[in-house]
Amino acid sequence: MKLLEQLKFDEKGLIPAIIVDAADGQVLTLCYMTREALQKTLETGMVYVFRRSQNRLMLKGESSGHTQTVKEVRMDCEGKSLTLRVEQKVAACHAGYRTCYFRRYDPKADRVEIVEQQVFDPKSVYGK
Amino acid sequence: MKLLEQLKFDEKGLIPAIIVDAADGQVLTLCYMTREALQKTLETGMVYVFRRSQNRLMLKGESSGHTQTVKEVRMDCEGKSLTLRVEQKVAACHAGYRTCYFRRYDPKADRVEIVEQQVFDPKSVYGK
Repeated sequence: MKLLEQLKFDEKGLIPAIIVDAADGQVLTLCYMTREALQKTLETGMVYVFRRSQNRLMLKGESSGHTQTVKEVRMDCEGKSLTLRVEQKVAACHAGYRTCYFRRYDPKADRVEIVEQQVFDPKSVYGK
Repeated sequence: MKLLEQLKFDEKGLIPAIIVDAADGQVLTLCYMTREALQKTLETGMVYVFRRSQNRLMLKGESSGHTQTVKEVRMDCEGKSLTLRVEQKVAACHAGYRTCYFRRYDPKADRVEIVEQQVFDPKSVYGK
């Protein structure tokens, strides 16, 4: 695939991919893809990621069912990162929020506060 | 600062920060911050980055004048990345585009195409 040839994977073989909600343009999460993960993402139209903590390729949402269907892929000026606009099922974050960026820094109070609504209960989805 | 205590910088001392246009929510660029860069960003309200290729702290836009004023900082669920909504002067990308993500992958044609308009001429701004 022509896209793969133009990308620069880092010394661990990863490229960061910013996942954006196709519905409203909100940034949902930042994930990391190997060449294989990106290839599988492009072939299937579903986001596959390289889960660094588990050191393996996985379908984003494989345990929760909260998968992401790819609508658009863009690369940056240097080929070092991607944006993927996706149709997100339920929510992107394992903590139960639509976006992983549900905490905002309040510089006046010097504290971090939750500014999004939880849309599912992680206990009932992941059974933890 | 309370925010800094909750973040996990990687083994190189960096955290990725997704820069989002406060005007329209578009993803502009992905940059990397050291603890010092983030601290300076929070103190001054202007984005400072750690330029990996030059191995130094710099004001984003220091040579072009295309600076970024911070309107909002969010952290992700794991404290491993940030989003910064900014007021962008002129453009975020050194290639002359508002966003670094000006190239889209066309899966049918298997090629990457430019889908944004150039807003400045890099030659006249950077003198290259």
